[in-house]
Amino acid sequence: MVVKLHEQLTEWRRDLHRHPEQGFLEMRTASIVAAEVTRLGFEVRLGKEVMVEDEILGKPSDEQTAAHVQWAAENGAVEEFLPYFEEGFTGVVADWDSGRPGPVTVFRVDMDALPIFESQDDTHVPGKLGFRSIAEGSMHACGHDAHTTIGLGLATMIAEDPDALNGRIHIVFQPAEEGARGAKSMTEAGVVDDADFFIAIHIGTGVPHGEFVSAANGFMASTKMDVTFKGRASHAGAQPEEGKNALLAAASATLNLHAISRHSGGASRVNVGELQGGGGRNVIADTASMKLETRGESSAVNEFIRKQAENVLRGAAVMYDVECSIDIVGEAISCKCSEGLAAMVGAVAKETIGITKVHNADNASAGSEDATYFMERVKNNHGQATYCIFGTELAAGHHNERFDIKEETLPVAVDVLYRTVLALNGRE
Amino acid sequence: MVVKLHEQLTEWRRDLHRHPEQGFLEMRTASIVAAEVTRLGFEVRLGKEVMVEDEILGKPSDEQTAAHVQWAAENGAVEEFLPYFEEGFTGVVADWDSGRPGPVTVFRVDMDALPIFESQDDTHVPGKLGFRSIAEGSMHACGHDAHTTIGLGLATMIAEDPDALNGRIHIVFQPAEEGARGAKSMTEAGVVDDADFFIAIHIGTGVPHGEFVSAANGFMASTKMDVTFKGRASHAGAQPEEGKNALLAAASATLNLHAISRHSGGASRVNVGELQGGGGRNVIADTASMKLETRGESSAVNEFIRKQAENVLRGAAVMYDVECSIDIVGEAISCKCSEGLAAMVGAVAKETIGITKVHNADNASAGSEDATYFMERVKNNHGQATYCIFGTELAAGHHNERFDIKEETLPVAVDVLYRTVLALNGRE
Amino acid sequence: MVVKLHEQLTEWRRDLHRHPEQGFLEMRTASIVAAEVTRLGFEVRLGKEVMVEDEILGKPSDEQTAAHVQWAAENGAVEEFLPYFEEGFTGVVADWDSGRPGPVTVFRVDMDALPIFESQDDTHVPGKLGFRSIAEGSMHACGHDAHTTIGLGLATMIAEDPDALNGRIHIVFQPAEEGARGAKSMTEAGVVDDADFFIAIHIGTGVPHGEFVSAANGFMASTKMDVTFKGRASHAGAQPEEGKNALLAAASATLNLHAISRHSGGASRVNVGELQGGGGRNVIADTASMKLETRGESSAVNEFIRKQAENVLRGAAVMYDVECSIDIVGEAISCKCSEGLAAMVGAVAKETIGITKVHNADNASAGSEDATYFMERVKNNHGQATYCIFGTELAAGHHNERFDIKEETLPVAVDVLYRTVLALNGRE
Amino acid sequence: MVVKLHEQLTEWRRDLHRHPEQGFLEMRTASIVAAEVTRLGFEVRLGKEVMVEDEILGKPSDEQTAAHVQWAAENGAVEEFLPYFEEGFTGVVADWDSGRPGPVTVFRVDMDALPIFESQDDTHVPGKLGFRSIAEGSMHACGHDAHTTIGLGLATMIAEDPDALNGRIHIVFQPAEEGARGAKSMTEAGVVDDADFFIAIHIGTGVPHGEFVSAANGFMASTKMDVTFKGRASHAGAQPEEGKNALLAAASATLNLHAISRHSGGASRVNVGELQGGGGRNVIADTASMKLETRGESSAVNEFIRKQAENVLRGAAVMYDVECSIDIVGEAISCKCSEGLAAMVGAVAKETIGITKVHNADNASAGSEDATYFMERVKNNHGQATYCIFGTELAAGHHNERFDIKEETLPVAVDVLYRTVLALNGRE
Repeated sequence: MVVKLHEQLTEWRRDLHRHPEQGFLEMRTASIVAAEVTRLGFEVRLGKEVMVEDEILGKPSDEQTAAHVQWAAENGAVEEFLPYFEEGFTGVVADWDSGRPGPVTVFRVDMDALPIFESQDDTHVPGKLGFRSIAEGSMHACGHDAHTTIGLGLATMIAEDPDALNGRIHIVFQPAEEGARGAKSMTEAGVVDDADFFIAIHIGTGVPHGEFVSAANGFMASTKMDVTFKGRASHAGAQPEEGKNALLAAASATLNLHAISRHSGGASRVNVGELQGGGGRNVIADTASMKLETRGESSAVNEFIRKQAENVLRGAAVMYDVECSIDIVGEAISCKCSEGLAAMVGAVAKETIGITKVHNADNASAGSEDATYFMERVKNNHGQATYCIFGTELAAGHHNERFDIKEETLPVAVDVLYRTVLALNGRE
Repeated sequence: MVVKLHEQLTEWRRDLHRHPEQGFLEMRTASIVAAEVTRLGFEVRLGKEVMVEDEILGKPSDEQTAAHVQWAAENGAVEEFLPYFEEGFTGVVADWDSGRPGPVTVFRVDMDALPIFESQDDTHVPGKLGFRSIAEGSMHACGHDAHTTIGLGLATMIAEDPDALNGRIHIVFQPAEEGARGAKSMTEAGVVDDADFFIAIHIGTGVPHGEFVSAANGFMASTKMDVTFKGRASHAGAQPEEGKNALLAAASATLNLHAISRHSGGASRVNVGELQGGGGRNVIADTASMKLETRGESSAVNEFIRKQAENVLRGAAVMYDVECSIDIVGEAISCKCSEGLAAMVGAVAKETIGITKVHNADNASAGSEDATYFMERVKNNHGQATYCIFGTELAAGHHNERFDIKEETLPVAVDVLYRTVLALNGRE
Repeated sequence: MVVKLHEQLTEWRRDLHRHPEQGFLEMRTASIVAAEVTRLGFEVRLGKEVMVEDEILGKPSDEQTAAHVQWAAENGAVEEFLPYFEEGFTGVVADWDSGRPGPVTVFRVDMDALPIFESQDDTHVPGKLGFRSIAEGSMHACGHDAHTTIGLGLATMIAEDPDALNGRIHIVFQPAEEGARGAKSMTEAGVVDDADFFIAIHIGTGVPHGEFVSAANGFMASTKMDVTFKGRASHAGAQPEEGKNALLAAASATLNLHAISRHSGGASRVNVGELQGGGGRNVIADTASMKLETRGESSAVNEFIRKQAENVLRGAAVMYDVECSIDIVGEAISCKCSEGLAAMVGAVAKETIGITKVHNADNASAGSEDATYFMERVKNNHGQATYCIFGTELAAGHHNERFDIKEETLPVAVDVLYRTVLALNGRE
Repeated sequence: MVVKLHEQLTEWRRDLHRHPEQGFLEMRTASIVAAEVTRLGFEVRLGKEVMVEDEILGKPSDEQTAAHVQWAAENGAVEEFLPYFEEGFTGVVADWDSGRPGPVTVFRVDMDALPIFESQDDTHVPGKLGFRSIAEGSMHACGHDAHTTIGLGLATMIAEDPDALNGRIHIVFQPAEEGARGAKSMTEAGVVDDADFFIAIHIGTGVPHGEFVSAANGFMASTKMDVTFKGRASHAGAQPEEGKNALLAAASATLNLHAISRHSGGASRVNVGELQGGGGRNVIADTASMKLETRGESSAVNEFIRKQAENVLRGAAVMYDVECSIDIVGEAISCKCSEGLAAMVGAVAKETIGITKVHNADNASAGSEDATYFMERVKNNHGQATYCIFGTELAAGHHNERFDIKEETLPVAVDVLYRTVLALNGRE
């Protein structure tokens, strides 16, 4: 890889880090991605063309979306492409057609940031070097700035030598991976329907720099719910019996949700991560809202937990004669990697400078990922799919306000992926 | 009062104490009552004649009832009358008609015992004097043996001087006061429909010997429920998810029942007094049963608590996908005493030897009493009703295994009641 | 009463309504009160002179206090007096000494507003007439603007005819009645220690205009607590066992708090009015905070509930191995009115034009009031104390964003109180 | 195997099935075992010689134990050996010494029955053929009658040809496997301290007849607890506040126990299988008892759950100001099988007539087994240990009242084990 690309990767990554955009608001990011890959000679498919509106979960309100258009316009979004993303459909697919027959290989990277206030500590590198988030309250604390960068780097490599490849390559730049909200919409839009091979990537996750995991199998199926209980307020001293206590319903639901049975079919999780209720010490609480999630080692286990959770929520509403509304705001399934493809990518990685150790599979239960929707679709269509992890040193864990990566990982990742392209689609 | 009656009262009371019979099983007791009052010249109405079957709550099973017939026959029931009570309709009304016009006055005493194992302690007087319960597990620990005795004593006094009275007197011997199960059935059968005056009595309740309360106003309305949750068993280690956890439903219900709101309309109570669930440490519990009660200072308050309780129970069933059945096994309403009648009885008591102090009213919230059904009916028919308490020293509190009374209270009580008869129905 | 005072009352009330200040921030209000009564010839005692710092509950932070000084200065606070209140000790006592021997009579009014966003509805009278709150988020929604106005009106009447009175009069302008936070501090400072008579007032509370309650006996003893649970965050999918779940502790505490036993000694209440916990759907919640209150018909009953509440909170902390801190941020006791004083004030009211009906006592359990601290102190010193209510029509209930009063009640109230002064301290 | 042994196995099994004895009461069983192996020429170690008293968990009371001695004596216990077991130390170790050097191989079978009322259904084979339990309420519903029989069959085979073997063989007949109560006591007594090889067995568990599992790895570590809450009774209507509610403590504990966090280190379980509380509908419950268990895929995971459970129990006691006592009545650890030994036994089984399929390992999480104590000890001493399962058809699942096995499995199991002896200790 030429030194120039190395510098370019750092530049892209720092620019993205400085301008984090949360899920379905990646307007600046997507416009830059679209501009760059177009410049390189890719065809692009944008916005609603690659996203089914009905399958989108947890989209920000129209007001938030409209407000962000303004921000993006003022902070460097590429004018030519911004209009495609103004309603919050921020997906981009970059297509490379060699013009020759051959397999279809799809890479997927994600673009969204988190609702975290980035550290202002002097020792936090992004601050020290001047690329700390300028959008206070938003932060690339999970490395998606690096993922987008790697996607752009891979595109650059592909475009550099058009004669080297057969078949076609798609690079999917996905919005809203956090909360498992964006992938299903792009899957349903068919963006991987022609894939013979599918590779999603992540950096970090506890794997040291120089190490590589060719098949991350531990993603749990998950459902994210926003729940609201609505009751009736009343003065807690004078007429408590007139109230319908939404907070008690929520407290009871919380306790009973965590008491949902374990499952012999595999690991499961349930968590009420946030609860807010009531409107005054001396008022019977008329409203309470909860953010919760369920997980399962398999989709069947998650489905079991999810169903029990709905029973608990409905039962709590009956108990306190209050209303309960449940919004599904995120969903991920579980999917195992294809062993053949994983072995092949692992073999490529082993030969790449900068990679010192290759793990064939990591099966430990971990978080959730909606890349599994793409993977399942590809496998159902008799293609192969895998999820790879590039190790990197982290300044602090994922989702921490001091999260930062080792930028040396970027060119190594681009290198492994481009070599994989050569292995799968090379003319030799 | 002649000395002979004094001795007779002690004898009756000790015989009844030795042969306690629980609610709707008072076959021996009722047969003796019927025989005694018949001997004295009263007319009697028995069993189903004075009880509406559909209004009976918490009746023992047919098996328990049949088994007790045998016990009663072997332990001194009067053969002539036993057949009237064999199906568990154990009410007796003794009627005295003076043959002259005049008011109708009704007295009510109760006959049932409690499911308590009587103390075997050497210092417990019934044991020491040889009249400890011979029916292990049953005990007169609330004084209903004394109440029945007082009713028989009053009948004796009335019969002694037929010329002294005008009008008619009924003495109601009620089964199953414990659990508030018997009075409604007799009320609906019309046994107080002709009453101008109605007086129910109790002894003890913390009032010292020699003191008298002419109007106990504090009885709370109450509902008694037996609740069963039925789920599905499963091995807790191998397949916990196959179970439907009835015990968790019951535990959750218990907690949320106690969390039912207080009421600004007056005192309320809720208590899960018993809970039994599960059938093995390593089995997801498929069954759980609860005995609970609600109370309210007024019937409206009790109704509020009862309705919330049903919501909680149904909600718990929804939460754990189990079935819930609710049986109402007892019910009492609240009813205030008629001030006029209470004042009159109080005045009579004040003039009676053995009564040193008269309290016109006691309004403190206390337990529940189904005599309130009779009282409400009488008051609705424009009669007057009151509930009186004869103080006595107690060896231990009501419902305690060492409960015992001071027998000197018996003749004093009979005296006050007979003087009341003279005041209400006397010929002069 | 002269028409001029009538207009003045309206003017004061609307100015105060337009400039609401929450508890311990009544700097503008107190400075105006101090200036007015000084102008009228009263002596004043201010700030820390009439408040014991250690007895203050739920005081805003130093930052909030400092920020409010600025606001007060810019919005009409009287420069001469503002310095006395800058640290948030906002009590004022206005003293009138006739120079002649005679009884000491104390009146108490309160000055603080509520954290409520006043209605912007067109039909809301304060908006329509231009005196809607200019301090967004604060509102006089309980009528304390009227109470302060009545206090100033009473001072005006007293000052108008110095020769009419014997003895001494104090008018206590109390901060922070909401949340029951200010009275104890002034009581401990001794401001009613010399009182022979003490009268606190309120308007509204459901009593119609023209009616008057001379003895409001139903205030419940109450304790207000802010509770925080602190645990340890962890990723809910990857390592749930590393977390210490503060939200589960709070949910469990909430449920068990409401399940605290009823008390046979009188009405009780417990309410968790607000609960906020957690910091992300997929994070084991490391913090949760609750606002709760207990109440009792008597101080003993409240003490019982409070003690149980502490057990529940400590137990929940043990259950989830989290830390629990409990801050008492408000406290009121219960106190019955002196019958003699109440009868006297009732008789005065009955003779006042504008009062059409007098209720001698209202014993229904209601909210809580920290005026009870003053009352208890006066009664302990062998004085007499009562709490009076002036009925008024309300546009919406107390603490509602559309609360408004009928201003015609103001001169009637001043009239009744001044006539009471004449009855207690008049020279003939 | 000679036909005679085949018949003998059936006879032993049916006799044992007809005379089931629960944990630490296997007096008849142990006396017969001791007599049989003595007859065959084994040395025996009995009772306290092979059990450390302090390590015994969940032993029946002295009264229950004494009562059972009588039953055993009257129902066929061998008089000569009964005295060794009268105090409930019912372990037997049968030792065979070839007199030649060689390895020490230990087999372990268990002897105890369950507290289950055996089916009286006509189609239940033990009833039909006349060997239904004569000890009502006890039943061999887990197949330990078969295990003991297999142990005796193996002893018979060993004794038949003394010249065939080198080294030494121990057969451990363990009491009280149910509830995981007996193995630790025998382990601590050193009965496997000299073992080079250790093999425990089970039949059934869902494996079909003819199939064999050479290494059951899925046993979870587990802790069994009996918990009692003691509070204070009080009349629920008259003085609820005087009570200390043990049942509410237990209900709250139950709910919060099930809400203990999942663990990323592996499968976990928690179950409150039984709860009994209270002593009357209208009494604040003063006592409640629970039977519960925790499990973990590893001992570390179980330890985590157990520790949280103790926090919850202690916290519930603090909440309701009641006392909590926790008795550990059973404990099992997790232990993986030695691969070498398992492979060897699997190879032997594959060559045995009657075995149609061999599974090398079953790693699915299942119940718990205290044989793991023996296994861990052997492995710590550098021996090898495994746990084998002989498939058999079951009439109904383990612990079901209609449980029954296919007796054809017995000779096959004996055959596999004897061939294993030959493989490990054969002279060739």
